Amino acid sequence: MSFSFGSNIHISIFGQSHSDAIGVTIEGIPAGFRPDTEALAAFLSRRAPGNSEFSTPRKEADAPEFICGLVNGTACGSPITAIIKNTNTRPSDYASLSDVPRPGHADYTAHVKYKGFEDPTGGGHFSGRMTAPLCIAGGLFMQLLGRAGIKIGAHIQSIGNISDIHFDPCRVSEEDMRRIHANILPVLSAEADEKMRGLIRDCKIKGDSIGGVIECAIIGVPVGIGEPVFHGMENVISQCVFAIPAVKGIEFGSGFDGCAELGSVNNDPFTVENGEVRTVTNNHGGILGGITSGMPIIFRAAVKPTPSIGAVQQSVKLSSLEDTALSVKGRHDPCILPRAVPCVEAAAAIALYDMIKNEINEGSV
Amino acid sequence: MSFSFGSNIHISIFGQSHSDAIGVTIEGIPAGFRPDTEALAAFLSRRAPGNSEFSTPRKEADAPEFICGLVNGTACGSPITAIIKNTNTRPSDYASLSDVPRPGHADYTAHVKYKGFEDPTGGGHFSGRMTAPLCIAGGLFMQLLGRAGIKIGAHIQSIGNISDIHFDPCRVSEEDMRRIHANILPVLSAEADEKMRGLIRDCKIKGDSIGGVIECAIIGVPVGIGEPVFHGMENVISQCVFAIPAVKGIEFGSGFDGCAELGSVNNDPFTVENGEVRTVTNNHGGILGGITSGMPIIFRAAVKPTPSIGAVQQSVKLSSLEDTALSVKGRHDPCILPRAVPCVEAAAAIALYDMIKNEINEGSV
Amino acid sequence: MSFSFGSNIHISIFGQSHSDAIGVTIEGIPAGFRPDTEALAAFLSRRAPGNSEFSTPRKEADAPEFICGLVNGTACGSPITAIIKNTNTRPSDYASLSDVPRPGHADYTAHVKYKGFEDPTGGGHFSGRMTAPLCIAGGLFMQLLGRAGIKIGAHIQSIGNISDIHFDPCRVSEEDMRRIHANILPVLSAEADEKMRGLIRDCKIKGDSIGGVIECAIIGVPVGIGEPVFHGMENVISQCVFAIPAVKGIEFGSGFDGCAELGSVNNDPFTVENGEVRTVTNNHGGILGGITSGMPIIFRAAVKPTPSIGAVQQSVKLSSLEDTALSVKGRHDPCILPRAVPCVEAAAAIALYDMIKNEINEGSV
Amino acid sequence: MSFSFGSNIHISIFGQSHSDAIGVTIEGIPAGFRPDTEALAAFLSRRAPGNSEFSTPRKEADAPEFICGLVNGTACGSPITAIIKNTNTRPSDYASLSDVPRPGHADYTAHVKYKGFEDPTGGGHFSGRMTAPLCIAGGLFMQLLGRAGIKIGAHIQSIGNISDIHFDPCRVSEEDMRRIHANILPVLSAEADEKMRGLIRDCKIKGDSIGGVIECAIIGVPVGIGEPVFHGMENVISQCVFAIPAVKGIEFGSGFDGCAELGSVNNDPFTVENGEVRTVTNNHGGILGGITSGMPIIFRAAVKPTPSIGAVQQSVKLSSLEDTALSVKGRHDPCILPRAVPCVEAAAAIALYDMIKNEINEGSV
Repeated sequence: MSFSFGSNIHISIFGQSHSDAIGVTIEGIPAGFRPDTEALAAFLSRRAPGNSEFSTPRKEADAPEFICGLVNGTACGSPITAIIKNTNTRPSDYASLSDVPRPGHADYTAHVKYKGFEDPTGGGHFSGRMTAPLCIAGGLFMQLLGRAGIKIGAHIQSIGNISDIHFDPCRVSEEDMRRIHANILPVLSAEADEKMRGLIRDCKIKGDSIGGVIECAIIGVPVGIGEPVFHGMENVISQCVFAIPAVKGIEFGSGFDGCAELGSVNNDPFTVENGEVRTVTNNHGGILGGITSGMPIIFRAAVKPTPSIGAVQQSVKLSSLEDTALSVKGRHDPCILPRAVPCVEAAAAIALYDMIKNEINEGSV
Repeated sequence: MSFSFGSNIHISIFGQSHSDAIGVTIEGIPAGFRPDTEALAAFLSRRAPGNSEFSTPRKEADAPEFICGLVNGTACGSPITAIIKNTNTRPSDYASLSDVPRPGHADYTAHVKYKGFEDPTGGGHFSGRMTAPLCIAGGLFMQLLGRAGIKIGAHIQSIGNISDIHFDPCRVSEEDMRRIHANILPVLSAEADEKMRGLIRDCKIKGDSIGGVIECAIIGVPVGIGEPVFHGMENVISQCVFAIPAVKGIEFGSGFDGCAELGSVNNDPFTVENGEVRTVTNNHGGILGGITSGMPIIFRAAVKPTPSIGAVQQSVKLSSLEDTALSVKGRHDPCILPRAVPCVEAAAAIALYDMIKNEINEGSV
Repeated sequence: MSFSFGSNIHISIFGQSHSDAIGVTIEGIPAGFRPDTEALAAFLSRRAPGNSEFSTPRKEADAPEFICGLVNGTACGSPITAIIKNTNTRPSDYASLSDVPRPGHADYTAHVKYKGFEDPTGGGHFSGRMTAPLCIAGGLFMQLLGRAGIKIGAHIQSIGNISDIHFDPCRVSEEDMRRIHANILPVLSAEADEKMRGLIRDCKIKGDSIGGVIECAIIGVPVGIGEPVFHGMENVISQCVFAIPAVKGIEFGSGFDGCAELGSVNNDPFTVENGEVRTVTNNHGGILGGITSGMPIIFRAAVKPTPSIGAVQQSVKLSSLEDTALSVKGRHDPCILPRAVPCVEAAAAIALYDMIKNEINEGSV
Repeated sequence: MSFSFGSNIHISIFGQSHSDAIGVTIEGIPAGFRPDTEALAAFLSRRAPGNSEFSTPRKEADAPEFICGLVNGTACGSPITAIIKNTNTRPSDYASLSDVPRPGHADYTAHVKYKGFEDPTGGGHFSGRMTAPLCIAGGLFMQLLGRAGIKIGAHIQSIGNISDIHFDPCRVSEEDMRRIHANILPVLSAEADEKMRGLIRDCKIKGDSIGGVIECAIIGVPVGIGEPVFHGMENVISQCVFAIPAVKGIEFGSGFDGCAELGSVNNDPFTVENGEVRTVTNNHGGILGGITSGMPIIFRAAVKPTPSIGAVQQSVKLSSLEDTALSVKGRHDPCILPRAVPCVEAAAAIALYDMIKNEINEGSV
């Protein structure tokens, strides 16, 4: 059940980095929905490798091929399956990786779990490449949500010690989300854009990598979505966001910082604005008791530095149980955050659509 | 499905703060398991209110009554249901709360979601009291895990700006876990204990509250537990930990801080120690690719300041949609963290047992 | 997950025949629903033992006690838990049963599965008594369905070789369902009533038992409910109906008999009647491709003769692996079908409500 | 969740009769398992169309293409996805079908459910063609079960009023299962083979169709598999078997006939044979209380006559709500039972493997 998700929808992801194809099967897209394939392609291209100097030079068209579920471009109520063929694979050299696990990767844990039968090529099913099908599903759900007036946008909040400005948690707008795409990196501030690019270039030169934080906002969500206890919005968004390899933390609203505050500071006063109940501040990140409050949902995900680095690292030979040195070859991103931004949006869309499916007007499709 | 959790086990929580009873039904306890009821009572007493000057004076024996699933104290393979009767309820005054939602609480979101039919008394099913059944389930799973050599311990990492020392992420031991209980508050350092108590007392005097961070360690977990993508250890632990009201963030291993680092710093080199593969550092928090590495699992949960405070706060009258002032009456914790510590352990135990159930030797029961 | 059911609702059954209590937790009852407790009691009394000469003399008030989920009799959106205390238990004598399994019972399979730790008293959690919580849940869902115009009624189709008349599969009405309760046994025909009672009396005198078939109809279901493949109406109704101990078969519409027919005979022609599409015959039992057609749903469940009989039977001593003779003592039904009728209705209601929940107007509550 | 199944495994079926491809994703195949692709092809060919005069002349190689999950032919622990390309499609003419639903088909119910957006070509995802991916999954699980000593075999029990002999419910053997394949139709008796073929030929000539019953046996299952109440073996096998279009009933052991008997006749006495507990008869069909008894599992599925027949039938024009006549064109099976036999085996294998996965020795892979 590991590669599957959903209560009201159902997505099932499959493939390995270097298998014939990767893909996703999606149940729960309403019959009659007509995906905007250009918008989807544009969304996927934000995740795709090889698009700028800031990512791995491995090039994949990554164009999804819909093999069922659409009839003349319109959802027919059957599961939608999209596959992406893996054309640009380089399976050589993997034999050594198989015996010497890369620090920070799943090579070792997979080796034990799958008893040596794991697919070591390119990380197998642990590859960041598996976020492509996640983004296909998420991209479709973003369109469905968008047609119901719900918009999702994320930006790089920080890389290393360089920070972007924050979304205004009470007033983040669709306009803010568009602003993000005006820069080279997905950030709100041109200054952060420039500094972050400098930092990434430095890391690339040194054969090192750098992590950071992504901030995501969801606006237009009605009050009352989410279920308490195990299926609150925080639980479900977390379950999806941790499906992105490299995510090691998540926080909602004022998060870890807010927890150092007094209740009198962190509590968000209620007020009436234009006949609607709102909060004056949004430390709760749009979620109270697991249920949406109508304020923007705000969360941040911590993304660890890409573990694949050129520098020599210490590892072990599993066959002989000896320490050894390892230098990872291959094509790698010095900073995965630019490509992780659409993945976080996709994960949020999948989680939210699962919770909201039965509440939104299918007529909006 | 909101109050239920599990793939290989199944727990189902029920009740409201002031209903006749609250409780939990647990499937997946192996037949033949004989719970240590004294150890369970001791565990539950760490969560129970009224045990020290640092918590609400509401007193509940909170002794679970097992109404089925045990025969002469031994699990018979049928679901185990435990209930706790709510004896010390004070349902007066709730009428006003129902119309004026408390800032930071689920009153407003519940009111919209349940169309005015929600149980407003004491927070209904959003009450922190619902962590009692969570702890019954978690307490039993901790015993099962313990008999298989897996130990779980948490401490208060920080309250406000006062920090406890950290677990040593590579070498945390059962002895460290016991040390936590030597102090009045569940912390590792006597100095933190004293300072934190001072801070909590201050908050109490001012009618305010304060939040913080809880750090949890799990030791003795074999390599290879957890499933990638949607059911990795991070996904599942998160889903459970966010079931604790007031948790607004979670991070694993080096977490948010590690994400500001270079890959060369954050990657954990592998080494062989006594014929076993280990990592030299543990920034990955015992989880790589969603799968356990055999190193201690380390995570931290951010707990927001208790929203119920005596100070006057701004809210709205829902019936007339007017702003109004609110002062929350009743018995409240100035700092929930001491009582939240066993809840975090319980949530971790439930998540882990669900993932590991089919891997551990039932003979160890 | 064995004792739990549901995709859109969630029910979790607990207890053993002679534990302190048995019960059920129900998620998915809409907030604001006000159960008719008298109607529920009347429904449960149809299943309760000791109500007529045709059932076991074990008497249990079987009055459910709602310990949470209702506030002043109205659902508040929290799970509803109802328990029934087991007052009239007789745990003596069970020691021998534990070693000598009763033919036709789960004693032996439970003994192996639970490694000797099973609860042998009164069949433990395999007891027919566990249908009481099933009927509590089903009874509530029948009320919810009833308010949306959907009615469920079942009758004894046959006992041994004595048959009742069938529902008219195209025109079964609420009036037919009421007619069933005019007789002493739940049948449509007074003649069958009398003959069946004679047969049951004979079995009782001989210390034997007899099985039969129950026919169930559901009317008022809109077109388009159910999901193809694994969650069609047949799949889901079956999953629930086989939760009733003693059910060994199920068939929909013309069922096994229809399968001996030609397609030209078994196919149901479509026609337009009062502006609505209907079928002229109803061999499909209201379900095509797993999806409701708007015609009455008709199915039949085969109920085996109660295995507990007074006659001497051959069994084995598990401890010594020797053949031995067994005569089952205790209070038993010579024919379980009268009491199984409401269980079948309850199972159908649970299955249907799970499928239809998101389609019916909650305003009808 | 409709196209997905499983608690311990997870299969997700996708595709429509005339989409680019159909297929299945399978989680839960142990890493290291090496499928016997020839045996799988042989199994699938029993379901494939066009293999004999007794089935539709539509020819599809139906060779599965494994696009991920296998590395050099060995399972790597990642989901296995197999697709079958739909090469021999004939989408013409379907426009009229879309407006005039075929009696006995899902055309009408799908039209309402999917609001006119359903894929009408060849029945869309309601096509019997969707049993090809079911058989891929089932075929793999049969191999896994087979390596653990568990064998599954089914035969046509009856077509119309012509019956094959029954499996001996206590002593069915692997040899019996092989015998089935010695005949042209999958039956035990040469006499039935000949008579049934005559009947099918008659139906074909008349443009009619005929249904029947399939009997399935599973041998080698250990005692203690299955969970009571909602996940007993009967519940889970039923849920899977009703995934086969055209199945309208299922019965276990002595089934409907046994329910007309006395308890003293239907109860199966226990005895000790070669140091093992067995039953003298097997009216319980190898399942007591939802749990396997170690005796052969025996069940029968009722398969309705193929609804697609050449004869003129009455239907309606949905667009104008008028009665109309319909003659179904296209390539159809006069009797689907020969091809449904492997489907029943596959469904049984999927259900059983899901229940037994954690109990069988993976070393047997």
